[in-house]
Amino acid sequence: MKDFSREEIDHILDTAERLEPVARGEEKLKLLDGKIIALLFFEPSTRTRMSFEAAVQRLGGKILNLGSVEASSVMKGENLADTIRVISNYADLIVLRHPLDGSARMAAEFSSVPIINGGDGSVNHPTQTFLDLYTIRRESHLEGLKIALAGDLKYGRTVHSLCYALSLYEAEMIFVSPPELRMPPEIVRDLQKRNINVKETDSLEKIIGDVEVLYMTRVQRERFPDPEEYEKVKNRLKVTGDLLRNVNPNLKILHPLPRVNEISPEVDSTPYACYFEQAFYGVPTRMALLALATGVIE
Amino acid sequence: MKDFSREEIDHILDTAERLEPVARGEEKLKLLDGKIIALLFFEPSTRTRMSFEAAVQRLGGKILNLGSVEASSVMKGENLADTIRVISNYADLIVLRHPLDGSARMAAEFSSVPIINGGDGSVNHPTQTFLDLYTIRRESHLEGLKIALAGDLKYGRTVHSLCYALSLYEAEMIFVSPPELRMPPEIVRDLQKRNINVKETDSLEKIIGDVEVLYMTRVQRERFPDPEEYEKVKNRLKVTGDLLRNVNPNLKILHPLPRVNEISPEVDSTPYACYFEQAFYGVPTRMALLALATGVIE
Amino acid sequence: MKDFSREEIDHILDTAERLEPVARGEEKLKLLDGKIIALLFFEPSTRTRMSFEAAVQRLGGKILNLGSVEASSVMKGENLADTIRVISNYADLIVLRHPLDGSARMAAEFSSVPIINGGDGSVNHPTQTFLDLYTIRRESHLEGLKIALAGDLKYGRTVHSLCYALSLYEAEMIFVSPPELRMPPEIVRDLQKRNINVKETDSLEKIIGDVEVLYMTRVQRERFPDPEEYEKVKNRLKVTGDLLRNVNPNLKILHPLPRVNEISPEVDSTPYACYFEQAFYGVPTRMALLALATGVIE
Repeated sequence: MKDFSREEIDHILDTAERLEPVARGEEKLKLLDGKIIALLFFEPSTRTRMSFEAAVQRLGGKILNLGSVEASSVMKGENLADTIRVISNYADLIVLRHPLDGSARMAAEFSSVPIINGGDGSVNHPTQTFLDLYTIRRESHLEGLKIALAGDLKYGRTVHSLCYALSLYEAEMIFVSPPELRMPPEIVRDLQKRNINVKETDSLEKIIGDVEVLYMTRVQRERFPDPEEYEKVKNRLKVTGDLLRNVNPNLKILHPLPRVNEISPEVDSTPYACYFEQAFYGVPTRMALLALATGVIE
Repeated sequence: MKDFSREEIDHILDTAERLEPVARGEEKLKLLDGKIIALLFFEPSTRTRMSFEAAVQRLGGKILNLGSVEASSVMKGENLADTIRVISNYADLIVLRHPLDGSARMAAEFSSVPIINGGDGSVNHPTQTFLDLYTIRRESHLEGLKIALAGDLKYGRTVHSLCYALSLYEAEMIFVSPPELRMPPEIVRDLQKRNINVKETDSLEKIIGDVEVLYMTRVQRERFPDPEEYEKVKNRLKVTGDLLRNVNPNLKILHPLPRVNEISPEVDSTPYACYFEQAFYGVPTRMALLALATGVIE
Repeated sequence: MKDFSREEIDHILDTAERLEPVARGEEKLKLLDGKIIALLFFEPSTRTRMSFEAAVQRLGGKILNLGSVEASSVMKGENLADTIRVISNYADLIVLRHPLDGSARMAAEFSSVPIINGGDGSVNHPTQTFLDLYTIRRESHLEGLKIALAGDLKYGRTVHSLCYALSLYEAEMIFVSPPELRMPPEIVRDLQKRNINVKETDSLEKIIGDVEVLYMTRVQRERFPDPEEYEKVKNRLKVTGDLLRNVNPNLKILHPLPRVNEISPEVDSTPYACYFEQAFYGVPTRMALLALATGVIE
């Protein structure tokens, strides 16, 4: 994400907005007619894969799918470079999801067609960040946004990328996490160097009245050696109907899904709930990336 | 199936008949052009899935496929309601196959697009019943049909649904099964209340001369604690060339497939064998359901 | 492969050449529009499956995919004949990959649509042979070719088929293998009866200066009871930059892929490396076979 300028991000989001009616099936626009998009998912990620597939289909493209199971078993003997060289001869673009850090960049060196990084290793998942940005722009606003990011801020790669991107729009950020899962200090420093106003807290209640967007993430039980500690944390970082009594009427709650119990079902029917719409916005965002990367839109 | 009136069933079968040439590839009719059909199969069912896929493809639609393996492993953490809410944002219709009773009805509550039940739990498999009805109408006739249903009538969900549907056409039914696997008495009573003439027997030989359609099903070894008992039953409920010496010349034999050894291979080449054609009729029947549910045909 | 005459092979290769621009995405030609091609892969073969899928997609056809995992687990109870009879009612052509020798021929008896053998058992893999022939014709020449085939010549089914096919073009053949993995003597005799000039050696160095095409294959560790023996062999049958110092300037190196370490990465950037292009040629070759088998090209 750090490679993108604000102008480039805006252009991608503008393109997504133009394509949204196509993503909804309300307009037909077969920009990828005759194009083959290879989906190489070397680790399972049903949601990301299906939203890419929907994006390709809505634009009239064809999908070449490496089954995820076959990926792990059959192609294991072969190095990724050879796989990419072969598949780039079959397709017009490759979406790569791979467990190793840096694999997308490496793949790009060996490919004769563009590569979209569908998530590699523990660091990058840029298409998730684009859909998060698109959701915020569509449902709230980016410039000078007051946002809280909550949950596992230590290991959550989606929140790291999102913070860097939001810093381009001078957002004010509040990080809400248990002490064990705080945002890495080097990221906090990076943001402060960019003149971003950053606060840290361990309680949703204290800050929920002050923000326009609440970005929730999962806290995984495995992070806690002590199960009691986990139970305490879990309840302090839970969005319930009660928590939402005195909030900004335009508050939007996002979550990359799947949720476990960070957001109670009673929240789903409130006007604040935005996470299912957010999942949908993966389709126009990925359509924009596909269209721009293949060059069918400039 | 009990929700459908005779008029509604007839309309579905009429639609299937109109679409049959398209299912055979003899006519092109891209009714689903631009539509995305999501196939969410949470348990494997290759035959049902492939006939749905063929139906979508013949009508020019696109398929969004949840791999069945991923289904069980990846989506396990998430509740079905959330999955349905997300996927219904990606697709224009969802075909759901799920191991739990009632899951299709529940899914329909959370979906913003129509759901077709591709089989849920031990009770319902309505698209199988529609294809069975279509086969009978195409190859024999529905009104006042003389039909024998044979095999495992206790646990076989396809025969239960089929009986209720056939009762709308005043069929005469003979149930042929070993005593251990008789039709549940409450179903027999239900049918008798609807003035259906019902007989029960344990021998194909006694009744094969009297029927127009014989609907065979598998008897599973696991149902019998005593293997000898199973062997006896298995042979009494087997369709062989010998059994077919004195039958109605228009007899049609159906089987939902896969068969194990209920029907000898020598029967395949007789004019009575109708089970492979029946498998094909899954395509026009599912095309009709897809076209009606998406509203491209009224 | 032995069923094909030289004229038939030439016609298939001519057709592949006509379709090559379509395979590259440079031309659109929807010859398979409205056709459904079923891919029944009863054993995993990602590369073969994906190149078939690319071929179908480039020609505008639709794919009906038996998941390979489901294939092995779900359809196990059913005999192949029944599966083929059902699927041939859903599709316009079946590509079958099956672990048992002779299964494609058997399937053809039960199918109402054409079958393409995508590899069955240890003997046949004809579409690989066609793509090898196409590669040789495109990148070198077939008539009177001087070719070395190297690696595991005892068990490698691709080299066996290729030798028979090349004998129609009066190729001169050098077989390079460790003594344990020599070409079966009955094949050598067959070729000699056809007046083919055959030499055998165990060293690439001795012959590399004399050939126009070098066809490498993998030598599998499992073939050797003694690991030291394997290490020796492995190094004698390795293509390195050094080995290529004094070769025919038009030398082309082929490999069916995946390679393990038979070809050093430094060879990839030489003009001799032809194995990735060879993988691509699987697409036009399979397009030709699909178009001819469905009758859309004569």
